[in-house]
Amino acid sequence: MSDAQYFGRKAREWIITAGSLILKGMEEKYAVEMKSKTDPVTEIDFRCEQFLKEKITNEFPDHKILAEESDPLDNSSDIRWIIDPIDGTTNFLHGFPYFCISIAIEKEDKILAAAVYDPYRKELFYSDLETEGTLLNDKPVTVTQTERVQDSLLVTGFPYEHNDIFYKNFLLHRRVYERSHGVRRTGAAALDLAYVAAGRSDGYWEFTLKPWDCAAGAYLVIKAGGKVTTVGGQGYSPYIPSLLATNGLIHREMLEILNEED
Amino acid sequence: MSDAQYFGRKAREWIITAGSLILKGMEEKYAVEMKSKTDPVTEIDFRCEQFLKEKITNEFPDHKILAEESDPLDNSSDIRWIIDPIDGTTNFLHGFPYFCISIAIEKEDKILAAAVYDPYRKELFYSDLETEGTLLNDKPVTVTQTERVQDSLLVTGFPYEHNDIFYKNFLLHRRVYERSHGVRRTGAAALDLAYVAAGRSDGYWEFTLKPWDCAAGAYLVIKAGGKVTTVGGQGYSPYIPSLLATNGLIHREMLEILNEED
Repeated sequence: MSDAQYFGRKAREWIITAGSLILKGMEEKYAVEMKSKTDPVTEIDFRCEQFLKEKITNEFPDHKILAEESDPLDNSSDIRWIIDPIDGTTNFLHGFPYFCISIAIEKEDKILAAAVYDPYRKELFYSDLETEGTLLNDKPVTVTQTERVQDSLLVTGFPYEHNDIFYKNFLLHRRVYERSHGVRRTGAAALDLAYVAAGRSDGYWEFTLKPWDCAAGAYLVIKAGGKVTTVGGQGYSPYIPSLLATNGLIHREMLEILNEED
Repeated sequence: MSDAQYFGRKAREWIITAGSLILKGMEEKYAVEMKSKTDPVTEIDFRCEQFLKEKITNEFPDHKILAEESDPLDNSSDIRWIIDPIDGTTNFLHGFPYFCISIAIEKEDKILAAAVYDPYRKELFYSDLETEGTLLNDKPVTVTQTERVQDSLLVTGFPYEHNDIFYKNFLLHRRVYERSHGVRRTGAAALDLAYVAAGRSDGYWEFTLKPWDCAAGAYLVIKAGGKVTTVGGQGYSPYIPSLLATNGLIHREMLEILNEED
């Protein structure tokens, strides 16, 4: 078994246990903090992240960890775990059942394995370097075959902060909506990306992603046959906040639409 | 057992069987027609509607039926079944797993029983005249306790047709988004309403609903302790296309926000 496969197996094992912590958390009274006026974090986010970090540091004490709710753990290994303990915290907080855990394992800017898990639906999206394609609960999935934006269903996300990009994206949201079958806004980037990979939507864009929002999901899209760039059309990296992920076939048309002059 | 309970029992039995027809349909190649440029209907919609109509006319040959995909059946009884065989057909068509079947049973403008079923998640939202509150898979659910829009998560829908209301709702979407925790757009009105009833969002509005989109869901919201009016604040009826459903506590503030001058 390769490193990628071994790390990936551990990621899958832990992400499912972490998912059950989240479901259990939903039933409790838990503390909530607002990181900003619109950006919440809950006790369950911290608990889930702590669980994953302990598992990783126990098993792989030299690995690096980059997680949403704590300072990066900068260790000696060139392997980095990139973790979002709850992607879609606003949804989780409101009991809106669309949220997930996201884990990507990176080595020198290359993803070795990626897992996105929706604990409510018990859906695990996974791939690694050795796995062909992307799997949903161990069955292969692929991106859609839709060839034109006018026949597509798209998804977007809005930033927490009400800045220029927030307002710009309302214009783009309307523009893409006008020219397609519609635009969905569900509120969990990693799961939105997993859905593109699984052929449940034709594409997704957002301007203000963090590595833990997109590293796993973008990898799943690419492995499922899709394409990922920035919204401007430049090469994608999880360390760049702008992202357009599509089935590949509509990528160029989406870039044209998103980059038209107002 | 009262009429409402008896009809409701039948509705629950048939809606679950209809749901399995839909799930089976997802695996097939099926025909798609466009009712307009953006309003699809599939063979599975017709098949599901036909199944439900047959069940109703066999058991209750004198009942009226009002269903999305066929002419109304105007019979001698004062009982009318109001049916959407797939609410969220665009989602269904794209494999985006957020759609439902909606059944309301009406007698002289009063709902006797209502069921909304998400076959993918196997979630049945139900109430009738004799049932206290609203049930989700037989367990009671209630609307949220959120008191202010600034602490709320809202949901909206956009019309299929790109008319004045379509454009107006982009402005309202942005306005509510600015003042709340966010606005979700998921694409299935009856399920969005069931989610308000189940406390998964704080409110939902839309301008162009048909009776089969809202009759069941609005009843479930009211039975779960929420409030339903038109977006203008007038009395609700499933035969009026405009609808605002909330937990009750934020209703007045939502009406104010939605009815501000631009």
